[in-house]
Amino acid sequence: MTTHKFEHPLNEKTRIYLRVESLLRQAHLASGFSENHQYQLFFRALFDMVEIFEQIQLKSELAKDLEKQRLSYRHWLNVDGVDQDALNTLLQEIDVVHSQLMSAERFGQALKEDRFLSSIRQRFNLPGGSCCFDLPALHYWLHLPIERKKRDAQQWQASLKPLSDALSLWLKLTRETGHFKAQIGRAGFFQSDADEANILRLHIPMEYGVYPMISGHKNRFAIKFMSFENGQACTQDIEFELAVCS
Amino acid sequence: MTTHKFEHPLNEKTRIYLRVESLLRQAHLASGFSENHQYQLFFRALFDMVEIFEQIQLKSELAKDLEKQRLSYRHWLNVDGVDQDALNTLLQEIDVVHSQLMSAERFGQALKEDRFLSSIRQRFNLPGGSCCFDLPALHYWLHLPIERKKRDAQQWQASLKPLSDALSLWLKLTRETGHFKAQIGRAGFFQSDADEANILRLHIPMEYGVYPMISGHKNRFAIKFMSFENGQACTQDIEFELAVCS
Repeated sequence: MTTHKFEHPLNEKTRIYLRVESLLRQAHLASGFSENHQYQLFFRALFDMVEIFEQIQLKSELAKDLEKQRLSYRHWLNVDGVDQDALNTLLQEIDVVHSQLMSAERFGQALKEDRFLSSIRQRFNLPGGSCCFDLPALHYWLHLPIERKKRDAQQWQASLKPLSDALSLWLKLTRETGHFKAQIGRAGFFQSDADEANILRLHIPMEYGVYPMISGHKNRFAIKFMSFENGQACTQDIEFELAVCS
Repeated sequence: MTTHKFEHPLNEKTRIYLRVESLLRQAHLASGFSENHQYQLFFRALFDMVEIFEQIQLKSELAKDLEKQRLSYRHWLNVDGVDQDALNTLLQEIDVVHSQLMSAERFGQALKEDRFLSSIRQRFNLPGGSCCFDLPALHYWLHLPIERKKRDAQQWQASLKPLSDALSLWLKLTRETGHFKAQIGRAGFFQSDADEANILRLHIPMEYGVYPMISGHKNRFAIKFMSFENGQACTQDIEFELAVCS
């Protein structure tokens, strides 16, 4: 049985976190430059991130959120039945990641100051704008040996490592708080309390031919299942699995 | 010796033609969906083309340009020393491509009317906007079997075939009019008459570490060679090859 795996953020900040996670992954996967057009995915991910960093103070948000997680895990110190070794290892990991985050420069600063990147960033988003005549410097770079291109890509990505480590840890710990439970969307509809949750995770069997439209905020959410083929609300009962992660 | 191959359009219309050629190629290459993120390249190419088609009447421009080529090749009919069989084959090819172009719907019309494509087009260009929660219908589609995805992609591309055939033919015939000749950019600079040309084609040895900045129009053009490493104008003599295609 094929399953449609789906995640939905319940607040704007988590929405940004998930977008940045997806862009970091895209940049990483494309940075092998194994196929002809991968450079487009790579630079697009980089420039999308720079645009996001210009809009929100991601570093201080993330530091606050990691701090909250640290405090909540500290409550388990010296509690009977809790694996104290595992807990201490986790708390140390949070400490390291948090302090690297605090001492990092503003996200994207190195990318914005890079002469080559800033020379190509503006035109890259034109429709069809990555032709050689629009971006001659980029096309010179594309002719360089692959080792050089990979080295440059690693260097650009390295400047985002404190962000990447902190974001991965926060999202991992957040996802771990949720446990998948069987649920039924009666007549294609489901609603429930969210209890300050950040992310909903869904597993939906593909056979239903539906995708979810989710509305909600930290306290309450509703899922409407839509038929893919006709774009209309589905009226059938849908059995799916749901994890609410806070 | 590695060579930097470069093309530069000498007018706005040819600039659009080259961008669309590059987008058609990108959509075609990505439509195998062999790697995880290729769908992004595919849809980006499709949506970039739709945006271009909304801005310019590509069909009538291209039909006029093909007509000009047809007329100029007709001058060679019954001229001694010209291979009449080859010429007739070419003229027939132009006829077929031209009449398919004339009977085609407005470019991109089918793509704009496609319910699925139009549902994902707006959000696709958000920074990081191709996450599942931004585009749930797209993420359902991504979970479909690869045969279904390829079939959809073929169908969307098929609506662009008259454009693709006409554009390929016009560009092929245009590129064939130019012949590469050795040239020297004295102190990193070269200029010449363009004589109603459409495209400049350059081969530049990579060892110089330079890329070209070209300015010009149909009658005259100038090439300034820039150093990739420092972004400054290069002052060295550059031996390169140039073809002027009209």
